[in-house]
Amino acid sequence: MTGLPNVVDVDDPADPRLDDFRDLNSIDRRPDLPTGKGLVIAEGVLVVQRMLASRFHARALLGTDRRLRELADDLPATTAPYFRASAEVMAEVIGFHLNRGVLAAAPRPRELTLDEVMADARTVAVLEGVNDHENLGSVFRNAAGLGVDAVVFGTGCADPLYRRAVRVSMGHALLVPYAWSAAWPADLNTMRDNGFRVLAMTPNPAARTLAEAMDELSGARVAFLVGAEGPGLSEHTMRSSDERVRIPMSRGTDSLNVATAAALAFYERVRVDSAGTPHERGSSEASGGSDR
Amino acid sequence: MTGLPNVVDVDDPADPRLDDFRDLNSIDRRPDLPTGKGLVIAEGVLVVQRMLASRFHARALLGTDRRLRELADDLPATTAPYFRASAEVMAEVIGFHLNRGVLAAAPRPRELTLDEVMADARTVAVLEGVNDHENLGSVFRNAAGLGVDAVVFGTGCADPLYRRAVRVSMGHALLVPYAWSAAWPADLNTMRDNGFRVLAMTPNPAARTLAEAMDELSGARVAFLVGAEGPGLSEHTMRSSDERVRIPMSRGTDSLNVATAAALAFYERVRVDSAGTPHERGSSEASGGSDR
Repeated sequence: MTGLPNVVDVDDPADPRLDDFRDLNSIDRRPDLPTGKGLVIAEGVLVVQRMLASRFHARALLGTDRRLRELADDLPATTAPYFRASAEVMAEVIGFHLNRGVLAAAPRPRELTLDEVMADARTVAVLEGVNDHENLGSVFRNAAGLGVDAVVFGTGCADPLYRRAVRVSMGHALLVPYAWSAAWPADLNTMRDNGFRVLAMTPNPAARTLAEAMDELSGARVAFLVGAEGPGLSEHTMRSSDERVRIPMSRGTDSLNVATAAALAFYERVRVDSAGTPHERGSSEASGGSDR
Repeated sequence: MTGLPNVVDVDDPADPRLDDFRDLNSIDRRPDLPTGKGLVIAEGVLVVQRMLASRFHARALLGTDRRLRELADDLPATTAPYFRASAEVMAEVIGFHLNRGVLAAAPRPRELTLDEVMADARTVAVLEGVNDHENLGSVFRNAAGLGVDAVVFGTGCADPLYRRAVRVSMGHALLVPYAWSAAWPADLNTMRDNGFRVLAMTPNPAARTLAEAMDELSGARVAFLVGAEGPGLSEHTMRSSDERVRIPMSRGTDSLNVATAAALAFYERVRVDSAGTPHERGSSEASGGSDR
């Protein structure tokens, strides 16, 4: 923690101090590739604010003077330099014009373990094969909004720290704790040993409805297991769950987008938890209806 | 209705019979611009199938031989020619390589009226200011999957027949009846006169929860009023509703994406409708969990 923000004016797009932000869309050089620089990039005031409040420690920021002023209350939380540049210089560095006007770059910290993210969690989302960055980001946004405490990745999931995933998550990929399963699907047994009821989301009409399952499990720890677009959960993983649950759907339609199906599960959990009890999960600052 | 499909082989990308599909991504010439050719374009086997089953009558199809075979059971429903071409010729015509391998083009039919789409509807989604094609498409997909009978557009909504909206909707923008409000927000009164309870979705913590409202209204006609990303519903529109309802959310998070918030409302309606009654809205063919 420090006092005044560390502002450095830059007007040369070739300045090597800006390399963390260079060629942001380049397929093979982009700084958020895990195989390259492995940085985490936050874009826009809101997501940068969330990075500054997270376990991801920014090592540099690049932005306009206007965004510097908008971040005035947040920058004292970091010692990283704020490279102040014009929108034109920024566009030359990153390779395109960025409306959001500000970026922050953080090295990837050590990954959390399953034990760590499970420790205080009541509700966990467990993903298998969710390999689309936008869906992954949406799952984090929905998890944050609807009271999910952690996300666990089984096999085949995309990188939640890819720039697009972080952006679509509204920065919640940096705030909702997540862990990669080290032994899949055996880790589902580990979760069960820790008191979690593991529910596999499925289109199978023989499954119990989400509402029925949630009514019964309102006092329990719950893990929602959600599968890939296309194939859904593997049969092996499905068999490792405690129970299969489904969302009641109209006849003859496709199943829902994976992030939407997950949101319905999260919602149902909150609804049952809050029905007639004093511990509704907060409504003082925001609740649904529109996209900010 | 006819018998064998009307297959026409084409190997010249400049063939004027393919003009309905030319320059599909061109900003000013794309055929799905309402101000230009005003066509509705379906992409991919599933969406083309839905167009052929809809009130949108295809006047031409363009696709590979493989997709022709996949559509064998559907093509007898149309007299339109199927222009069979190689993937390379298709790419030259439309301007990029289309993995989905088949397109259909239909003229825009007359728009339906509010009276027409209201007539047999129990649940209606009413949108204001939803100007993002992807969100609009997602609303239609969620509406179809979660038992919504019609969509009504207030001011400021994007074109649901734009190619991207149709694609994201999985073709349901062609199947779920919709109407543009001719008098906004006065049409909300018309809906009320027809027995609809108009519920405005809002982040306002003083609003009643969705679950409470649905429990009370299980026998009634319901219209869910959902606002734009960013500003939400206008105050004027909000005041034209019967009641404000909210989704219980976690403290300190953003509100949800507009299509996700709508999905939660639709889900809650189906949940209450189906709880303990014999008329659950179908689970024989599909239900949630993954994205096909």
